[in-house]
Amino acid sequence: MSDVGAATFRRAWADLAPVGRADDGRGYARFAWTRDDHTLREWFAGEATARGLDLVVDRAGNQWAWWGDPDATPGLVTGSHLDSVPGGGAFDGPLGVVSGLAALDVLGARGVQPSRPLGVACFVDEEGARFGVACAGSRLITGVLDADRARGLRDADGTTMADALRAAGRDPSTVGPDPEALARVGAFVELHVEQGRGLVHSGAAVGVGRMIWPHGRWRVELRGEANHAGTTPLADRRDPMLDLAAFVQHVRTAAVEAGALATVGKVRVEPNGVNAIPSQVTAWLDVRAEDEARVRAVLAALTSWALAEESWTPVTWFDADLADEVATVLGARGTGPSGPTGGTRSDVRAPVLGTGAGHDAGILAAAGVPTTMLLVRNPTGVSHAPAEDADEADCLAGVDALATTLEHLLARDRP
Amino acid sequence: MSDVGAATFRRAWADLAPVGRADDGRGYARFAWTRDDHTLREWFAGEATARGLDLVVDRAGNQWAWWGDPDATPGLVTGSHLDSVPGGGAFDGPLGVVSGLAALDVLGARGVQPSRPLGVACFVDEEGARFGVACAGSRLITGVLDADRARGLRDADGTTMADALRAAGRDPSTVGPDPEALARVGAFVELHVEQGRGLVHSGAAVGVGRMIWPHGRWRVELRGEANHAGTTPLADRRDPMLDLAAFVQHVRTAAVEAGALATVGKVRVEPNGVNAIPSQVTAWLDVRAEDEARVRAVLAALTSWALAEESWTPVTWFDADLADEVATVLGARGTGPSGPTGGTRSDVRAPVLGTGAGHDAGILAAAGVPTTMLLVRNPTGVSHAPAEDADEADCLAGVDALATTLEHLLARDRP
Repeated sequence: MSDVGAATFRRAWADLAPVGRADDGRGYARFAWTRDDHTLREWFAGEATARGLDLVVDRAGNQWAWWGDPDATPGLVTGSHLDSVPGGGAFDGPLGVVSGLAALDVLGARGVQPSRPLGVACFVDEEGARFGVACAGSRLITGVLDADRARGLRDADGTTMADALRAAGRDPSTVGPDPEALARVGAFVELHVEQGRGLVHSGAAVGVGRMIWPHGRWRVELRGEANHAGTTPLADRRDPMLDLAAFVQHVRTAAVEAGALATVGKVRVEPNGVNAIPSQVTAWLDVRAEDEARVRAVLAALTSWALAEESWTPVTWFDADLADEVATVLGARGTGPSGPTGGTRSDVRAPVLGTGAGHDAGILAAAGVPTTMLLVRNPTGVSHAPAEDADEADCLAGVDALATTLEHLLARDRP
Repeated sequence: MSDVGAATFRRAWADLAPVGRADDGRGYARFAWTRDDHTLREWFAGEATARGLDLVVDRAGNQWAWWGDPDATPGLVTGSHLDSVPGGGAFDGPLGVVSGLAALDVLGARGVQPSRPLGVACFVDEEGARFGVACAGSRLITGVLDADRARGLRDADGTTMADALRAAGRDPSTVGPDPEALARVGAFVELHVEQGRGLVHSGAAVGVGRMIWPHGRWRVELRGEANHAGTTPLADRRDPMLDLAAFVQHVRTAAVEAGALATVGKVRVEPNGVNAIPSQVTAWLDVRAEDEARVRAVLAALTSWALAEESWTPVTWFDADLADEVATVLGARGTGPSGPTGGTRSDVRAPVLGTGAGHDAGILAAAGVPTTMLLVRNPTGVSHAPAEDADEADCLAGVDALATTLEHLLARDRP
């Protein structure tokens, strides 16, 4: 690991650590188009400026820091996002952005002169924590998320995305597909903390992403009749909290039987008063599995409830040749099973993994961009929570692996 | 029904109708020490001024409009509150305040000269919708709610009651027991919309309150482990949403078996993200019954969960002699089973009812004030919801019954 990469990593990590962090150890709250998001965007712009990179902001607000003329020829891009879920960890997102900047510094120190534009992307609103649609930034530029629908999405306070954009000084009317921005991305490599313990089990610091599980979100509105908790006989009640209880249990049973993951993680109770029988409970269901049939089996077991689909993402296969190539290169460099030893065993490949989590990489892959991911070992396996973790040594191995991957891909594409 | 009472009732009802009302038919949101609460308090102060009444604000912020010198001798008081639950109806609270003012106007038109001070009270924060403690205004002046505890209570945004008081222009250090204010209340009659259909079944427009059921609130914190919904195997999860489901079902079963009312109406999920296994679910339990043994039986069935008591109010018996006397007077006047006919049948008594809902009347009764309630027929039986209702004819019968009751009690106490 070069000193340059480590220095960049440590400084950037220290810069980002306090932004949007709760005082009480409850993790991060970095939501799109808020003050903290603005701070993070300004930080990224400053990093681009400090390196003499060309900062481009696309029609969705994603930031692209380019080394070389981005319009010269399709470029090679790395990056991730800086926003978080509520109560999120420090690594999901920022690790990929920081590693991308550090990898550029490593390449610069190695004297690499990119044969084509090399970019670091910072995608906006990847988690969808505020407006409910994950990967909103990449979905918007690829046209997967309709601009009118996006503008009308509301956060928990009722603020629309259009109003949030205005408050952040952006013109919501410009939001929409951005084929020009997309055409600049000849290939994309997203580095991300692993959201599970696959690399712990295989004893490797870094792995290569193979595919993203099919996954979707559904909303169910359980309607009841509001009434006074102290005066309404049990027999006269239509209490949707009981329906929620049955739904949660059916979801778990269906997931176990189908071999899928299914979660009710978000609930809204109205009016949510201690002495009021709820008029309505709204619950959100998240289902994922290795294949679509398992997801459909969960839904088929829940036909007693009217599920409204909020999003659906089919299985996403990353570029198989690219993943194999990267796995072999990294294995040879020794970031595979034996750890970052610097060895050169061409018979060893870095572990190749699937992931249940959605990413901007998946959106770009589905849009036809050759894409792969690098995953960094997470000792807890926890993600979307403060316990999300990665050892610094593994983070630096990730920077090294990313720099190696980018250098290899630039060399491969040299005319 | 006098024209004076009807005119006052209609005008006051029209004044209050728009304050704190949601645009979409979702009822009222009138929470303590908010802008809407301020509007309601100013309205009440204006009504007092317009009648030449002496407005006194006690140490909790409750408003008292006095006809006659409030310090001359213990007075007779009617009134209720103007705040609401979230998504509340129009009647719970305001009906008692408006009817009190209208009854004073009826007595004035009848040429009554009160032999002792006659007051209309407007209690603050009866529903406890913002800070979680019901009847906060009456509990504070009677010392049942500790002032330090009250000042530290937080609303959903984390604002303390102390800060809310400051923001409303009040000094939180003055909050506390107010024996002087309490000593002025020689007897209290609270008129309230019925929260149930007892009067519908007995065919009467107005009934008399006999007692308030014992009732309490408990909080249970269901702890889990936050993690990513897309990557955490089901077997590795500690998902408190499943615990909530089991809790809700056990609560219902326990209530059925005990012959009690038990409700889980408020839930808080953290972090409440679609793709996040919750770290914690907090649920609030409301239990009430005709007697304490039934409430305790519900709690005894829930020993698998650690219930933290937030409030407990034993059974409250109103003054039995007072209730009987009022029931007889009203029956004679004809607001009893045969409806507001103006008949004079001394053998007919207005229905005498218990109620599962807590009221400021209950707090004053527990503090030793001779107290009773008048209840006005509610065709839907619904309360704490927009469907809460009362026909205007029944509301006017309520004004008439209240005026009759006050006149009778003033006459009885004449030296």
